[in-house]
Amino acid sequence: MSREIKVLKFGGTSVKSIGRIEHVACIVAECAKKYKVIVVVSAMGDTTDYLIKLARSCSSTPEKRELDLLLSTGEQVSIALLAIRLHDQGIRARSLTGGQVGIFTESIHTNARIVDIRRETLERQLEENDVLVVAGFQGVTESGDITTLGRGGSDTTAVALAAAVNAVGCDIYTDVDGIYTTDPNLVKNASLLRKLSYGEVLEMARLGAKVLHPRAVELARQYDVKLRVRNTFKPEDEGTLIVGGEMEIFRAISSVAIDKDQAAVAIMDVPDQPGIAGKITHALAKKNIGVDMIVQSFHPSMDHNSITFTVSEDALDDTVKVLEELKASLGARIVQVDPDCAKVSLIGAGLVEQPDIPAKMFTTLGENKINIKMISTSEMKLSCIVSRKEADKAAKLIHEAFELHLVEQPSAVTTA
Amino acid sequence: MSREIKVLKFGGTSVKSIGRIEHVACIVAECAKKYKVIVVVSAMGDTTDYLIKLARSCSSTPEKRELDLLLSTGEQVSIALLAIRLHDQGIRARSLTGGQVGIFTESIHTNARIVDIRRETLERQLEENDVLVVAGFQGVTESGDITTLGRGGSDTTAVALAAAVNAVGCDIYTDVDGIYTTDPNLVKNASLLRKLSYGEVLEMARLGAKVLHPRAVELARQYDVKLRVRNTFKPEDEGTLIVGGEMEIFRAISSVAIDKDQAAVAIMDVPDQPGIAGKITHALAKKNIGVDMIVQSFHPSMDHNSITFTVSEDALDDTVKVLEELKASLGARIVQVDPDCAKVSLIGAGLVEQPDIPAKMFTTLGENKINIKMISTSEMKLSCIVSRKEADKAAKLIHEAFELHLVEQPSAVTTA
Repeated sequence: MSREIKVLKFGGTSVKSIGRIEHVACIVAECAKKYKVIVVVSAMGDTTDYLIKLARSCSSTPEKRELDLLLSTGEQVSIALLAIRLHDQGIRARSLTGGQVGIFTESIHTNARIVDIRRETLERQLEENDVLVVAGFQGVTESGDITTLGRGGSDTTAVALAAAVNAVGCDIYTDVDGIYTTDPNLVKNASLLRKLSYGEVLEMARLGAKVLHPRAVELARQYDVKLRVRNTFKPEDEGTLIVGGEMEIFRAISSVAIDKDQAAVAIMDVPDQPGIAGKITHALAKKNIGVDMIVQSFHPSMDHNSITFTVSEDALDDTVKVLEELKASLGARIVQVDPDCAKVSLIGAGLVEQPDIPAKMFTTLGENKINIKMISTSEMKLSCIVSRKEADKAAKLIHEAFELHLVEQPSAVTTA
Repeated sequence: MSREIKVLKFGGTSVKSIGRIEHVACIVAECAKKYKVIVVVSAMGDTTDYLIKLARSCSSTPEKRELDLLLSTGEQVSIALLAIRLHDQGIRARSLTGGQVGIFTESIHTNARIVDIRRETLERQLEENDVLVVAGFQGVTESGDITTLGRGGSDTTAVALAAAVNAVGCDIYTDVDGIYTTDPNLVKNASLLRKLSYGEVLEMARLGAKVLHPRAVELARQYDVKLRVRNTFKPEDEGTLIVGGEMEIFRAISSVAIDKDQAAVAIMDVPDQPGIAGKITHALAKKNIGVDMIVQSFHPSMDHNSITFTVSEDALDDTVKVLEELKASLGARIVQVDPDCAKVSLIGAGLVEQPDIPAKMFTTLGENKINIKMISTSEMKLSCIVSRKEADKAAKLIHEAFELHLVEQPSAVTTA
């Protein structure tokens, strides 16, 4: 194979109708003039939700192996239709299911991780065809069972294929222009970011920004896959490029993220003994409840701790149940909950080196009478828990205070 | 495996909604009390037609490999939902696509024939599960491409699986009570036939009765699979049993079939030379036109033949084109067509031995002023071409003349 390979990925809204599939076929055809192309597609529009609804009307707890077999049909329809369309345009295209392309996963249903991609199959298919249309979100176990990859699955498929064939780039087509300094639906003058590091995007995704799924970004970082997020309906725009480069910091602050799915839980008056936090998170993990932000404070005068943490809102009831059972054995006295929380985060690769940034963030919120309930920091982000009804206002104020609408855009690198 | 195995097949109308899938699950559960069960299902309701429509909106001539990949999703949805439902009822069920169950076919898309079924896979799956839910109509090539089996595909899948596991029987569930002496929508007092031979059913299917597809019946005869046609909505009824036994004749006449998709073509004044019929059928076969009934008559006084044959109505235009091109080289003078024909056939295993039967049929039509355009006979059937508008009347008269509404029913054998 002498030609370079490029991977393109189109989400459900990009292929939700025959008209859109035709549009996608045009983008693919254009790209195929220069590269061998692997196109990864999701299920058309709301197909996956519809299939889940069908399964739930057959059983309130659909067996997971069967659910995967059912859901995988969504992508199978998309790939067949796109390949039919490309053929009609005279392009040597071939559709491949996850199993056919050799995406092997763990034998865990509805949330499998990719174990291996058989390069031989891919390389042979790329020799015989100009475009491979691959079903996102799905794989197959060694024993031939169909699996799905869970949330962010199609992005992960695209990045994994790009890594396997050493593609020149992986373009994630979506219905927005790229990645912004904050949610442009909330802040009208949010800036489009032309270039970001994997680390920044990872923090943004983890902190609730609906950009790429962290799994896909992790994989891209691991295999050094050049990612680009761009708009299906403005294919001439270059969108946002995501590349390595935590070492060269692009800018101190890149964005503000909001996550409204947060509930805070506090356990008060816990004796100051080792292992308490461990016991709590262990008990919650057994019920499959993930703890997000966790803050432990110590009151030396009283030999008592209080532990506060956040969980996603729909896990709150189960969390309280676990803690009420645990309370006596911990020697704790009170469990308090605050269900209506939100997390507002400032993200930037250079954040850790500028101590005036946290001060500015807290002051901005304080001057505007927004109470900060919890604070958590890491190398690349600074998060505050505020009451949910104040979250949008908080994000706007922070975006403005750091003048993110004026973020100077490093000129995008040449499109791969 | 100590338990005997039974194969059940449900068509598209039997699984067209969640309610019907629940009903099918009940029938399967009942059967699973006594047998290991293999259930073969078609796509839900009109799914296949819908998918074909989608493909056609992407291309007027959808690539066949891609079309098969697309269509196979229809059955995949059905099997997953039925398996989910069965699981919910506490039954150890597992869905399997054509590829997963090891149904290997020729590498011919949209109309593949089954080459092999891997017994090891089937036997292992039957040991681990009580019910296997298998996608009808589909298979896989040695290289892993998905194929479909064409018309009658799901019946064929069911019979092939029954043959592979040496099942005690194969029950084809449909939306009618079984096989009748003629179309019960046309003749109100048509009798339900309790027992038929493979040969009789084959003739009925070939002659236009919409019962089982001839492919499935051929396969059942070849592997001696005990077939039963029964009503999904009256699962307690025993329907029609189809077994071997051309030797023991059940009855002289079993049914009247009508095929309205017939057009007659006559080539007049062909010189009486060898090879003319061969030339014509060969030229038509090259255009993929199948000739149905063919009659050659000779006029010794004129040294001229005329050849008359029927084709399906939608092949008429192409047929005429081929003949007009061929006319000169044949030395023929005139090509005549009669587009509005129908074939009315009398079917019975004992027909050949009773010469009064043809006489009675022709007389009945003659006395009622129905003109017979062509006649064709074989060991088990007697067909007349009449004008299409007289077909229903002809069928009714023949059904009455042979008193088929009084057909004495041999008592059905014990349900397997």
